[in-house]
Formats: sequence, structure tokens, C-alpha cells
Amino acid sequence: MSEFAVIERSTPAVGATAVITGRARYTTDLYPPGTLVAKLLHTTYPHARLLEIDAARALTLRGVVTVLTAEDFPGPNSYDLYDTDQPLLIEVGECARYQGDAVAIVVAETEEAAVAALEAIVVRYEPLEGLFDPVAACQPGAPQVWADRPNIYDHLHFEQGEVDRAFAEADIVIEAEYQTQCMEQAFLEPEGAVAVPGRDGEITVYAGCQAPHRDRRQIARSLALPETRVRVVVPYVGGAFGGKDETHVQIHAALAALKTGRPVRLIRTREESLLTHVKRHPIRVQYRTAARGDGKLMAVEVRGYGDGGPYANMTRQVMEVFAIHASGPYYVPCGRIDAYSVLTNNPIAGAMRGFGMPQAHFACEQQMDRLARALDLDPLEIRRINAIETGSKLATGVTSLEAAGMRDSLEEAAQMIGWNERYRRERQPAPHLRRGFGIASVMQGYLLGPKVRDDAATVTLELGVDGSLTVRLGVVDYGQGSHTVLAQIAAEALGVTVRDTRVITPDTDKTLEAGSACSSRVTFICGHAVLRAAEVIRRGLLDAGAELTGHPAGTLNLRDGHLHGPDGSLPPSIAELANLARRSGHQLSATGYYAATGEYPEGIFDENVLANPCGYYTFGAQTVEVLVDVETGEVQVERICLALDAGRVLNPVAALGQAEGGLSQALGYATMEELVIEEGRTRNLSLESYLIPTSRDVPTTEVRFLDSVDKYGPYGARGLAELPIVPGAAAIANAVRDAVGADCTELPLTGERVLAAMHGQPVAA
Amino acid sequence: MSEFAVIERSTPAVGATAVITGRARYTTDLYPPGTLVAKLLHTTYPHARLLEIDAARALTLRGVVTVLTAEDFPGPNSYDLYDTDQPLLIEVGECARYQGDAVAIVVAETEEAAVAALEAIVVRYEPLEGLFDPVAACQPGAPQVWADRPNIYDHLHFEQGEVDRAFAEADIVIEAEYQTQCMEQAFLEPEGAVAVPGRDGEITVYAGCQAPHRDRRQIARSLALPETRVRVVVPYVGGAFGGKDETHVQIHAALAALKTGRPVRLIRTREESLLTHVKRHPIRVQYRTAARGDGKLMAVEVRGYGDGGPYANMTRQVMEVFAIHASGPYYVPCGRIDAYSVLTNNPIAGAMRGFGMPQAHFACEQQMDRLARALDLDPLEIRRINAIETGSKLATGVTSLEAAGMRDSLEEAAQMIGWNERYRRERQPAPHLRRGFGIASVMQGYLLGPKVRDDAATVTLELGVDGSLTVRLGVVDYGQGSHTVLAQIAAEALGVTVRDTRVITPDTDKTLEAGSACSSRVTFICGHAVLRAAEVIRRGLLDAGAELTGHPAGTLNLRDGHLHGPDGSLPPSIAELANLARRSGHQLSATGYYAATGEYPEGIFDENVLANPCGYYTFGAQTVEVLVDVETGEVQVERICLALDAGRVLNPVAALGQAEGGLSQALGYATMEELVIEEGRTRNLSLESYLIPTSRDVPTTEVRFLDSVDKYGPYGARGLAELPIVPGAAAIANAVRDAVGADCTELPLTGERVLAAMHGQPVAA
Repeated sequence: MSEFAVIERSTPAVGATAVITGRARYTTDLYPPGTLVAKLLHTTYPHARLLEIDAARALTLRGVVTVLTAEDFPGPNSYDLYDTDQPLLIEVGECARYQGDAVAIVVAETEEAAVAALEAIVVRYEPLEGLFDPVAACQPGAPQVWADRPNIYDHLHFEQGEVDRAFAEADIVIEAEYQTQCMEQAFLEPEGAVAVPGRDGEITVYAGCQAPHRDRRQIARSLALPETRVRVVVPYVGGAFGGKDETHVQIHAALAALKTGRPVRLIRTREESLLTHVKRHPIRVQYRTAARGDGKLMAVEVRGYGDGGPYANMTRQVMEVFAIHASGPYYVPCGRIDAYSVLTNNPIAGAMRGFGMPQAHFACEQQMDRLARALDLDPLEIRRINAIETGSKLATGVTSLEAAGMRDSLEEAAQMIGWNERYRRERQPAPHLRRGFGIASVMQGYLLGPKVRDDAATVTLELGVDGSLTVRLGVVDYGQGSHTVLAQIAAEALGVTVRDTRVITPDTDKTLEAGSACSSRVTFICGHAVLRAAEVIRRGLLDAGAELTGHPAGTLNLRDGHLHGPDGSLPPSIAELANLARRSGHQLSATGYYAATGEYPEGIFDENVLANPCGYYTFGAQTVEVLVDVETGEVQVERICLALDAGRVLNPVAALGQAEGGLSQALGYATMEELVIEEGRTRNLSLESYLIPTSRDVPTTEVRFLDSVDKYGPYGARGLAELPIVPGAAAIANAVRDAVGADCTELPLTGERVLAAMHGQPVAA
Repeated sequence: MSEFAVIERSTPAVGATAVITGRARYTTDLYPPGTLVAKLLHTTYPHARLLEIDAARALTLRGVVTVLTAEDFPGPNSYDLYDTDQPLLIEVGECARYQGDAVAIVVAETEEAAVAALEAIVVRYEPLEGLFDPVAACQPGAPQVWADRPNIYDHLHFEQGEVDRAFAEADIVIEAEYQTQCMEQAFLEPEGAVAVPGRDGEITVYAGCQAPHRDRRQIARSLALPETRVRVVVPYVGGAFGGKDETHVQIHAALAALKTGRPVRLIRTREESLLTHVKRHPIRVQYRTAARGDGKLMAVEVRGYGDGGPYANMTRQVMEVFAIHASGPYYVPCGRIDAYSVLTNNPIAGAMRGFGMPQAHFACEQQMDRLARALDLDPLEIRRINAIETGSKLATGVTSLEAAGMRDSLEEAAQMIGWNERYRRERQPAPHLRRGFGIASVMQGYLLGPKVRDDAATVTLELGVDGSLTVRLGVVDYGQGSHTVLAQIAAEALGVTVRDTRVITPDTDKTLEAGSACSSRVTFICGHAVLRAAEVIRRGLLDAGAELTGHPAGTLNLRDGHLHGPDGSLPPSIAELANLARRSGHQLSATGYYAATGEYPEGIFDENVLANPCGYYTFGAQTVEVLVDVETGEVQVERICLALDAGRVLNPVAALGQAEGGLSQALGYATMEELVIEEGRTRNLSLESYLIPTSRDVPTTEVRFLDSVDKYGPYGARGLAELPIVPGAAAIANAVRDAVGADCTELPLTGERVLAAMHGQPVAA
């Protein structure tokens, strides 16, 4: 019998039946009586001064209720995620700085009337010169995106050890430059909000989002309402991947509802979604690696230029995570890392699954292959030589915890794909095809870092006297399965089944703040909060058990709906225990709070660490097999193997789902996905032209979780949500290099780029 | 400047504007789309065997959807407050035992169709002999209400000291018998429930009630649903007074919704309400008092027979509270108290404001006046002589805490009415009128007693970063103002204003269990829970304050929206503190739990206490002036004065409202209110024939709260909700005796009864 009754099992996802049967209601399914339709009027100019908005004609159209502009916000006209530089609507006289800036909200009785109003509004702009190259933007004398603000609005510099001396003394130095592309989250459900005004000036906003309590604060702020007058309810959410971390149209919809006194729907079309929301940062990476002749790394020097578009959003944070991961999961005694957050008039970049890590790995893991080739070492071997171990210091100054999984993953991933036998496979299975194998290590930091002291969650549990359990979660599950895993943790701790467990989903009136569903933090942070709440209730149940059975409480356990003693199940059911505990004055409902900062093991951050380093990491390795068509350059990925050490896997099928989804997303990142942006304008504003992998594109994927229990995670689990997307592009690029000898340093590896690399030519613009 | 910024102020009631403007929505205002109407078919027989229910014709009527009977309950067919002897619907072959028993639920498209269906159902009964006299029911050989159960289903006996010896040695013994009537709560809003089925078999029940979480358990039990599938939401509630402590029609409505798959409204008419719900117990009290010649009490011997009707409900608990209060707020060294819970076929009695206390005081306080007369002492003096003091032992074996207010209240109440000058007032202001003055002491125990270990509450607070505060209360405010007082406690503790405080009202999905709104427990228990939650948040704010100002946290306070130091207000606002605290990893939301049992001061309950004694008491005294019409016997109450020691008064106007309401209710109890029950059938099933005091009946009332701070209550407050109804009947009876020399031992003191007492005749049946 397993040690556990609920975790380590592939419990079906909470809410899955509703999703599968179509009963699940998403934001777009909500039509409160009397609902109006709102739409945003976007500039489409990458850079222009707004001179005038004339809505007079629009307001005469049948069914048009109102047109709102910047001055209509009772509170600050800005998003407020970290900085407040992004306006919700551009004010007359001010500049629009990217194509997705909005200038007005139209509110109408019908969709048709709203569209007609959008077309009838006359807006006059003074087009301004745009700045579109982030590296050029860093040069002295470059034109400014903001008159009063440097284009490099943040520069993160970190240095450890004698870097220059290491490079001088190195047996070998590898230097290369890499460029990643602008990537779209491509969540299934475009952003939308339905805002419903209450009878006393309060407002309820329904929206798929990642951080409902933070959204509430932002809505309250811009509407100049007390937080207590704003309720945010999260219906089912069709994906996010970071793209819904900042508010999208919640504040606009709420303003429209407040001004009209009627419910308002504001749902973005796919085109509007692609036009507006934050993307994955294109990062230019300049990378130098110094090593000894035996392959031991001596130093890295990395410069990354992240193109954040015109507003701060999370660029600084993404570039920090990039920097933290720039040297990969390797022991490097010396490092110099510079990460530049650059303003341009390109689309805004912000959070997307991986958050700087895929870009860092794309560079670092190709560097490792280059080094291996230069030293005539196997790519696996060079990674074995340098892989970090428990207690070794990362280039960011952090002492790594529980890192044994790094080496084990490498061996496992190699074994899965048959690494050592790879040259026995035919290298040229058809005249135009070349086979190649690639490997990449991965480390994925999780949580928000020790300096973010509000990386915290509050979770409430309620046990019924019938043994049924309610878990109130303020953290969003937008498809990852996190609610299922948290319900499992709660059920395990209290000895009930997941079937008897109900999750109350995020609603600021029902659930308490648990932070954003981001940074692979949910299982870890909220899981700990669940355990703390459960512990309070559990104590009462065990006391009741002791009273009923005469066994000391310390020898008792809860499992499978029953009390358990040292010799197995005892008669009292959890329901009986709950009844007695309640009648004995024990709490059956409790709130657990967990804040990560104070809980990190002491001493892992030295005084010289990168500003806000990661403390916890999940490790893994990916191997791939590709076929490259030497005539078209097309990359066909044949197999993808991923081994990872995610600690204890609480729900195998959910973890596998995370992994498989991430591997597909990485395949898209590596080979096909790219927002084509010309002079700040996105040319492929549809999912017909922005291509993501379909089921026909995704090859066999194999995933193995190492048998492991993390010392710090709830029930030994680690964060794993982002890891699967991180190493893929690097592994595939390494495999392409293996197949055709071409270094592909620009993503994605389209046929055109691979052909150009094979022939040593630049890619045509 | 007062020590406090929020409490001790007459903050307007939370929700008052909505109530006053008619925007408040009560259960009866809810009409979800597609709602059906349900009604209950009552037996109206006091005792009969149900032989057959034939709904065939009813089911053919247009608009009738279904007729449900006992067998339709998936779970137990019983109420479950303490015992489970009361069926929700009588089963065929079983007995109906009081007029309000129901046999079927009709569900129809319209009210008219439901009424027609009720009339079309053919029910056959075998009428059985009823048992209507509780004292006769206690005699050997009396017919049985239940074949398998004695009529005296509970007998509580308590004895302390050498009672018989005390009576033998007494200088004087006073013996009399008293009879109280069956009283109706007469809440404004008759009982009702609206049940709405969900998409996955779950159900939401909206109902005015007193204990939503307990109702949820009961609904889940009888519907055989997990608790997690049942949600209970409490809209505005128009009064309860104990009459909604047990579920009323929630389970019936939920069953109808579950069976039909549609929302169901089940709202009782006033007549149905009067017919069915629990009333205040009629209690026959046999009372003997032994005293010394100087007036010192030596012993009491009290027997009370409580007529509970046919089902247990809360009769045992009421009789226990009766017993606890039987000897009043006096030091009596010896006591023998017997309290009988008797089954009859009369209406069920249960909780009603006062809960056995008014009946006990009606007897005890008349005994004190008789004793005073016999010894030629002033009624005030006899009370002074015997009033308990802090540390003296009550007849129940409990050491009284903080009892100084008892004597102070007596002096204050006497002073208020001009007790010592009362004989200067004209005794015969008109030929037919006689003036009299009466006094009565009162002690009101609060909370559920130390043996009820789940006398507990869980409350959640959330502070916004803008300084706005949300208080989530699972305890019902049905008009008392308790939510206002709890919001004040929270606001005071966190230095914000009540204006910035929002209360989330009871909803099992939003709020946690806080127990029933009963037993004058809400301010005390929930107030403590609020303080515990506030303390968690407060710590973070003060730490932030220390960080911002450099003052040690221990010297800082929160008040009026700002940080305060030893010298007054400091710049940081609560909003700034909240922001910093949050960013520093402090909780801004927290749950507080308080269970009374473990918190009672040690040693106040000796090993010989009455089963579940009260530990905390509020004391007071009432004086009244009456005019009695010697021709009609009519009692005109001219003035009512109440002095009480309720500890710190957190909201003066709310406390005054409680007091004035209770004094009016006591006036009705004393002089006019009576359910006229003949052979188990209530003859006055309307508020035209069951008369409660109107504004024209209520004389000038004066209320004074002693200046006091309780050592154990939150901010020094005591429970006071029930006290004002407790002494009135005794004080008025004493005044009538003073006016016309007649001992009125039966309630209410109608003209007929007073005349009969004046002429030494029994009242005509």
C-alpha cells in the first residue's frame, strides 16, 4: 500500500466534466439581462500623437449608448502591475506608443452598433517616427520612445569572480550571438470581461485572468472605488500562459458599466487579442563562454537585450529571470551578466510561460554544444562535466538545493532516446533528409524570488461533519490542473477523497488572496497554505480519534475516509471524527497562510547574489531527434524525450499534461511560431497566419519523472509548470546542427532560416 | 478625546439605507426565472394517525407539478436540531402529534394552483385522544403522547445545601404557583425559503434563518447530499427572536427543487407561520422560598413544568436556562430545582428571546415581593439585601463574575422612576384608576454554556491596500444590529472607519461558520473572533508603522485611518501601512476563531454545578409605573425604566434599540400576548387576534446603561440581547399588586385576569 491515498494518483481534473460536456461557463458565455456591448478603439499606429477624437457622429448612430475616453476614468488612467506607465486609454495630446494602444471605449446595445460606432469615430493623429530595433535603441543618440525616459529603462548587472582573468586564462572561448522572436501565448480564450453594476455603486467583474485580487485592486484604483466595492469573479478560463497576468479589459468594462449603470460585455476578438496583449520578449543574447581544455567551465559573459515594447509591464522581471538562468544549470565560477530592458515601439512584451528562461536556454545550451564540438566532447559529456550538484554555487550567487536531479535527468533523457546508440541510426534516411540528435539541460526557478515578500497565499478549508471538504482557492486554475492538485493535497491531509472535495473557485467575495497563477508557484505556495489550514483541522480530528479509540493522537493518521492507527484502519470515519471534533470545540474551518520569503533555507543567498534570485529549482533534460530536409530546410521533429526531477509528482496525469503541453509549445517556439512585426505592426493577426503546432505537428513525446521527493515542497513537490517549454528550442537547434552542421541562432527554425544557416547566408528580412 | 474612535458610537446600522429605501431584498423578494410555488399541507389535527394521502386528483389540476410525501426524502425525514424526533412530513401509518405537522408538499406553477392542489388532496386520518395539560401529563397513568417514550422526556434535578433543613428553620416560607402562557415571536417576516437547483445536482437555499451553516448540515442530511453540494444564503431577515433557530421550510423547499429541477419558493403565510413554528414555553412554576426574619434568603425550591408540545426541539435547553435563572440574581445558600420537559399535543415550544428566563423571573421576582410584604420590607430593600455580588455563589453552583452591576442597577432603576418618592404620587388619579409601582431584578446568562463546546465562531477579515476593510460574517443579523457592532469592533482594531468597512453577510460559500444568532452570544463570541483575526493583520500594520517611522511597534496604535504614536497621529495612513505590510509579506486577510468553552475563567464552575450553567451574566433592574382600571381590570403601563450593566456599550443607539424592543415585547408578554390554544388548536391564527403592542401601547421607556467595562468581553462588552424582555412581566405584575392588591400569577395580565385576581376568582377558561 502506498504511503498516500490521494496524492501520487491521476485524479481527474476538478471541473473536467463540465468542460467536456460544454456546461462550463466562460466569461464569454455570460449575458446578464440588459447587457451592453463595449469595444475598444485601437490606434494601430506604432507611434503617434493623438490630436483629436470626434465621436459626435458615432453617438448619433442607432444603438450607440456612449463613447468613453481617457478623461472618464475617475481614478488613474493607467495599468498598475508594476509601473504605471501604460495608459488605459491615450489622452488627447499624448502619444500612442504601440499598435495596441486604445483611445476610446464604445458602448452600444449590440455588437453591430458597437462596430459601426468604432468606424464612425474620427480620430486625428500626428504620426511620429518609431523605434523598432532594441539594440539600436541602446546606442547613444538613438531617438527616444519617451522624451523623459531613457530607452534602456533598466539595466541589471551582476558580476562574480574574476571574469576577465578567467577569459584571459581560458583554454577556449566560445562566442556567439542569438536572437529569439516575439511569441504569442495563443490561449484558447481571447481576453474578455463582463462587468455588472450593483445597486449601491459597487461593481462585479467576471473575467478570465490570473490574479483576481490584484485585478480588484487595479479596478478599484482606476474607478476610484474602495476595494470593498469591487468584486472579481473568475469563471472557467481558457488558458493564459502569462498573457492574462496583467489586467486586460477588466477596467475598461468596469468603467463602461459604472458609467452606463448597465452590465457590459467587452470581449476581444482574436485579432484584437493578438494586436494588444503582451508577448514573449524577443531577446538578443551576446554570449561568451570560457572553459578549460578538459571542458570545465571557467566563466560566462552574457548580455541580453530584451525588447519590451513601449511600457514597463514585466520586462524588468523577465530580464531578471533571463539573467538568473543565463548560465544554465552549470557550475561556473565566474560570471558577468548584463540584462537590458529596452523600450521600443514594438508590441509590448511581458509574461509568458518560461518568462525569460527559454531565451536564456536557447543561447546557453547552444554554447554548451559549441564548446563540446570545439573540445571534441560528447554534448552529454560536456553537460555531465559541468552540471551543478547539491550545494554548488550558481553563477547568480545562489547555493543550489537538491540538485542531484540534474545529472540524473541528463542520464535519463539520454537513455530514453538512445543517445549512446544514436550513430547507429541511419543519418540519411532519404536523399533529401538528414537525421540529427540534440540534447539540452534545463533548470527552472520557481516562485517570485525572496525579495518579493508578498509571494504568498491564503487558502481556506472547511470540513463538513459528513466528511465532505471544501477548498476555497483564490488562485486561478486556467487549465493547468492546479485546483485538482490543491484539492488532492487537502484531501490527503484530512484523509478524505477528492470525490468528497469541492473547490470554490476564485471570487473575491468567497476566496482570499493567493497571488497570481504564475511562476510555477501555485502547487508550492498554495499547497503549503493548504497544508497549514489542514493542520489546524487535522489536530482536532486526531484529538477526536484519540478520544474515541484511546490511542495517543500522535500515533494516529487520517486516510481513505477513516482513522488509521499503527495497525491500519480503525472504525471511526472522518465524518464521525469531524462531528466529535466540532462538538469538542475544534475548528472545522481554517485559513492557512504561507509567504515564501521567510521560508527559504538559510544561507542559500550570499550577499553578492543577483538582485532577486530564484531559490528553488526544478531540473531536467530534453533529448530530441530531428530530420532536416536539406532542400527546403524544413525541420521535422521525430521524437522528444524529457526527463525531469519535479520532486514528488502529486498528480501524474496532470503533470504529464503540463509536460506534453509545454513540449508542444516549445516545438512551436522552435520551429514555427513568430509574430511578424514590421515597423511595429504585426502582420499576422490571426491563427491562420500565426501558426501553432497542431496534433499532426507534434511527434511522439516521452516524459519521465525522476523518483524523487523534494525537501521543501508540499508533500515533496516542486513547481514544474514552466520547465517543459524551456529547453526545447535549444535541443532542437542542437539537433539541427547535428543533422546538417548549421548553427541556427535565430528563432524560429523555419525552413528559410535553416537553409540560410546551412549556406552561411543571412535570412532575408 | 475618547479612548476609542469607532466603538462607543452610534454608528448607523449596516444595511439600514437599503432597508429604509426598500432596496433590501428579503427571501420573499426572490423570484429566480422559472420559479415554482410550493406549499405544505398541514394536518391541523393535534393528534391523529395518518391513514392515507390521495393526491391523484390534485395531480390532474392545471399547473400542479408534483406532490411530495415523506417517502420522497432521500435522507432522514426529520429535523435535526438536537433530537431527531420531529418528522419533516408525517408518514402514512404514523401519527401527527400537533396541529402544525405537515403531510405533503405541493409544487405548482402558481400560488393559485398550489392552493387548489392543497384542497384537492384527500387525506384520511384516525383522530386520537390528545394530551394538553402538561402537569396532568406528568401524573402516573396519563395517556402517552408517544407510545415508546415517557411524557416527561427530561427531568433536570439540582440540589445544593440542606434545603429541607433550611425550610424547617426558616422564619418565613413563601409558596406560590405561577403560570406563563404560550407566546409567539411575531417576527415581521414569516418563514420562507427559495431553493435553486444547480447544474450538477447541487442546491442553493435562500432563507431567513438564524444558523445558516447548521441549516446546511440539516438540508444536506435529509437530501442525502454532501454538505459541499448545499449552499445556504441568507438575504435580509425580518426578525427571528429564536423562532428561526431550527430550520423551518428550507428542507422542504430544497427537496421540491431537487425533485423538480426548478427553483422553488415556499413562503409561509402568517397563518401558517402562527400554526407551525415553535413558541415560547408555557411553564407552570411551583415556587417555595425560605428566608430569615431579616429578609436574608435561606433556600428556594422550584419546580417548573415546561410544555414543549410533542417534539423535543429545544425544550430541554429552555428548561435548563429556566432552572439556571430560577433563583434570580440573589445569593441563596440552598436550592432544589426541578425542571421537567413535558410532551403534549400542544404547539411545539422552543427558542424565543429570553429562553426560559422571563418565566423564571416572573415567578422569582413575585416571590421576592411577597417576601418583602410578609416582612414589611420595601421591595427595593429585599433585593438589596439578597443581591449577589462578585464572587458570591449562585444557587446553580456558579461563582458569579463581575456582579457589582446588580446592586448598581437596582439603585439606578429605583432612582430613574423616583422609587423613594413614589407614594407622593396620587394613588387614585381617577375614581376607577389605581396607581402602582413595581420593581424586578434581572440576570441574563449569555452564551451556550461551557458544556456546549462548539459555542464558537470563525470570522474572516480582509484589509485592502486602500484601507478599506471587509468583514465576512457567517452569523446572521436579523435586525439586532450585530453586524454593525462587529464591523465596529473590526474597524476599531484596525484603525479604519465603519464607512470604509463592508460586511459580507452569511452565505455558506462566502463566510465561515459562526454559530447561531441566539443566546445573546453574537457580540461576545463573534466579537472575540473578529479581534483574533484583526490581531493578525494589526501586527503587520504596526510592523510597517515601525519601519516607516522608527518608533517601536509596541508604542504604536491605529486610529482614524492613521498610525498613532504616543503623541498622536503620525503621517502614515492605514492604506500606506497596508501597502507596505502586504509587500513585506504580512497577511492582510485572516481568520479568527473563538470557542467559548476553553476561555471561561478557571474555578467558576464547581463540581456540583447545574448540568450546563451560564458563566457570564448581564445584570439589570426594571421599574414600572402602572395604572389599573378597577372596573375593567385593564393594566395601563405608564412608565418603564431599565437600568443595566452591559459592560461597555459598543453602539449606544443599537443597544438602546435592543432595549426598547425588548421592553415592548415584555409589555406584550405581560399584558396582552397569548396564543389561545384549545385542545391543541390555536384559536387566534392572525395578528388581528394575536395582539402585540403597537406604538400606541408602549409608554415612555427610559434606559440607562451603567458605566462599566466587562473584564471578559470584547472591548469590555457583554451580551445584552435578551435581558430587556426578561424582567418586564414580573415588574408589571408587582406593580399591579401594588396598585390593586391582587396577586396576578398567570400571564398575560389581561383585564379579565386582573379582575379575577382582584376578586379572588379563577379566570374563566
